[in-house]
Amino acid sequence: MEQELMRLIAQIKPVSTAWSARAKERLDSLTKPPGSLGRLEELASRYVCIREEPMPALKKKRVVVFAADHGVVAEGVSAYPQEVTYQMVYNFLRGGAAINVLARHVGAEVEVVDIGVKADFAPDLDLVACKVAYGTRNMAREPALTREEAVRAIWVGVERAQEAVSQGVDALAAGDMGIGNTTAAAALGAVFTGRPVAAVTGRGTGIDDATMQHKIGVINRALSLHRPDPQDPLGALAAVGGLEIAGIAGLILGAAAARRPLLLDGLIATAGALVAAKMAPAATDYLFAAHRSQEPGHQIMLDSLGLSPLLNLQMRLGEGTGAALGLGLLEAGLKIYREMATFADAGVSEK
Amino acid sequence: MEQELMRLIAQIKPVSTAWSARAKERLDSLTKPPGSLGRLEELASRYVCIREEPMPALKKKRVVVFAADHGVVAEGVSAYPQEVTYQMVYNFLRGGAAINVLARHVGAEVEVVDIGVKADFAPDLDLVACKVAYGTRNMAREPALTREEAVRAIWVGVERAQEAVSQGVDALAAGDMGIGNTTAAAALGAVFTGRPVAAVTGRGTGIDDATMQHKIGVINRALSLHRPDPQDPLGALAAVGGLEIAGIAGLILGAAAARRPLLLDGLIATAGALVAAKMAPAATDYLFAAHRSQEPGHQIMLDSLGLSPLLNLQMRLGEGTGAALGLGLLEAGLKIYREMATFADAGVSEK
Repeated sequence: MEQELMRLIAQIKPVSTAWSARAKERLDSLTKPPGSLGRLEELASRYVCIREEPMPALKKKRVVVFAADHGVVAEGVSAYPQEVTYQMVYNFLRGGAAINVLARHVGAEVEVVDIGVKADFAPDLDLVACKVAYGTRNMAREPALTREEAVRAIWVGVERAQEAVSQGVDALAAGDMGIGNTTAAAALGAVFTGRPVAAVTGRGTGIDDATMQHKIGVINRALSLHRPDPQDPLGALAAVGGLEIAGIAGLILGAAAARRPLLLDGLIATAGALVAAKMAPAATDYLFAAHRSQEPGHQIMLDSLGLSPLLNLQMRLGEGTGAALGLGLLEAGLKIYREMATFADAGVSEK
Repeated sequence: MEQELMRLIAQIKPVSTAWSARAKERLDSLTKPPGSLGRLEELASRYVCIREEPMPALKKKRVVVFAADHGVVAEGVSAYPQEVTYQMVYNFLRGGAAINVLARHVGAEVEVVDIGVKADFAPDLDLVACKVAYGTRNMAREPALTREEAVRAIWVGVERAQEAVSQGVDALAAGDMGIGNTTAAAALGAVFTGRPVAAVTGRGTGIDDATMQHKIGVINRALSLHRPDPQDPLGALAAVGGLEIAGIAGLILGAAAARRPLLLDGLIATAGALVAAKMAPAATDYLFAAHRSQEPGHQIMLDSLGLSPLLNLQMRLGEGTGAALGLGLLEAGLKIYREMATFADAGVSEK
């Protein structure tokens, strides 16, 4: 499967800027001062370049939420018990979680993927059952995943993107659920940005000062144990990553290969993006940073990807909540592009 | 009418924080770490406090766009000809302007008010015809408005709020159209914040360096001529303001008196807010700063009102475009509040 992944990565091409002049011409013909809608215009232009169409549609939007558990919770790094991952999957399926509310608000579907929850679900649920393992192993003691498990989890994400595209999804958003996953994301953040663990580690769901210091210590211990090489993204992912992070990396690679935009969420999704970008640097062209999380590592990780967040609403929930709001902004930008009258049509004088 | 306005202002009460504890209790019972949805939770809580209901609805949303002309354009301060105000009103009525697109996107109505356009419209349009004057006079030579005209224009805005509330509108947004109006807004910004004209003046629809320096000079000349007193908001509004700015001030006062939230847009709407806040400081409690405009004076004016913008998308269009996006965020916050499952309902473990 690693070879299949390499073939997919070879298909990912940088987004051509050939279409941006055409998009600008259209945007500047609309009844507004040129550039006066700022980042909404940037979103529209980028979407045109990604889709390589003069008037692309943006109808079907999907948030893919990957759920998985983390062996490192045995070290006491989280404010919530591990069973919350499992319980929240049921909450997603019943439509009661924040991501359900915000996805409905922006008119997006929610797909829930069990990629590694440490419990079995009933068989008749509206859940994509792709469990690679019953959670990761404890990175503080052993590698979180084998290299083969990491590849399988990435491939789950690739397939979620491919199926979405085959079902007519125009834009994807990445979401996550996994108690303990800010520990894994911060570890990957330290590996790929080269910054100290303390700079990229935050309070996750809301741990106190002592637990925060302990969390930093646990991550440092794991990094000393495995010495992950940032030039070997698969190895780093296996050593200190998570199954949902791997799934998100795969979703990004699959979206980029199929020329579909992907809205990143917060720390966890951006850790997945660091992995994907190291495997296929051109994949970054298809990414939109929906928001800036309250997690201190997030901005550092976005900076290293060269992405500027659209929103800063002091959110830190994950699940794809920020990404869902970002989908709404992307759609707003595209509606501006498609629906506004031109100066000529409206009979409005230009400068 | 000035007495009627004083009676309305006397009705405006500060938003009671008595409801915020109740809102927090609800928000903290929902299946997410407490506070993890950041400003979405803040929006929901403020809305509950404004409406003084445990589970308020937010169904009908309306953007009120006030259109008016400015005599100061005779000084050559704008990049576009004056007739664009008139032409853009037709664009609004046909649904082709940016505000139409973004209001549709967030599910809000658009109401267009002729409060002072320098031309007559056909009588059968879907336009609120409340023309107070055929534009303002040139502030560089004489007061823009008489005090009586300023009061009448404010009252037009008050009545737009009252009619909206009587029609079941839950949340309002303020929009503007008026070639030359960043000149008036910057002049009011300088008066009420005490900052130099150069600090609060921007490029409006996109003027060059020379026109920018000229614009600053024109505003300084007008302020030297009239010496507006920031303690006399009506006098300052009459001296250097605009009819659409007065209408927005009235919309704010009317919304606050009826306990409805109002989303501010950019420089123009915020100039109206400065006038309204000086007349009725408690009205600020009902205001939400939807976005930070690219106009440099905007942040300064928001700071002086104690408001923090929700969005920073490098927009500078006006019309209520930023405010419309803000309405969407307010609604997102309220949906979180109303629609999310609680820990108890969902059977999810707490900390």
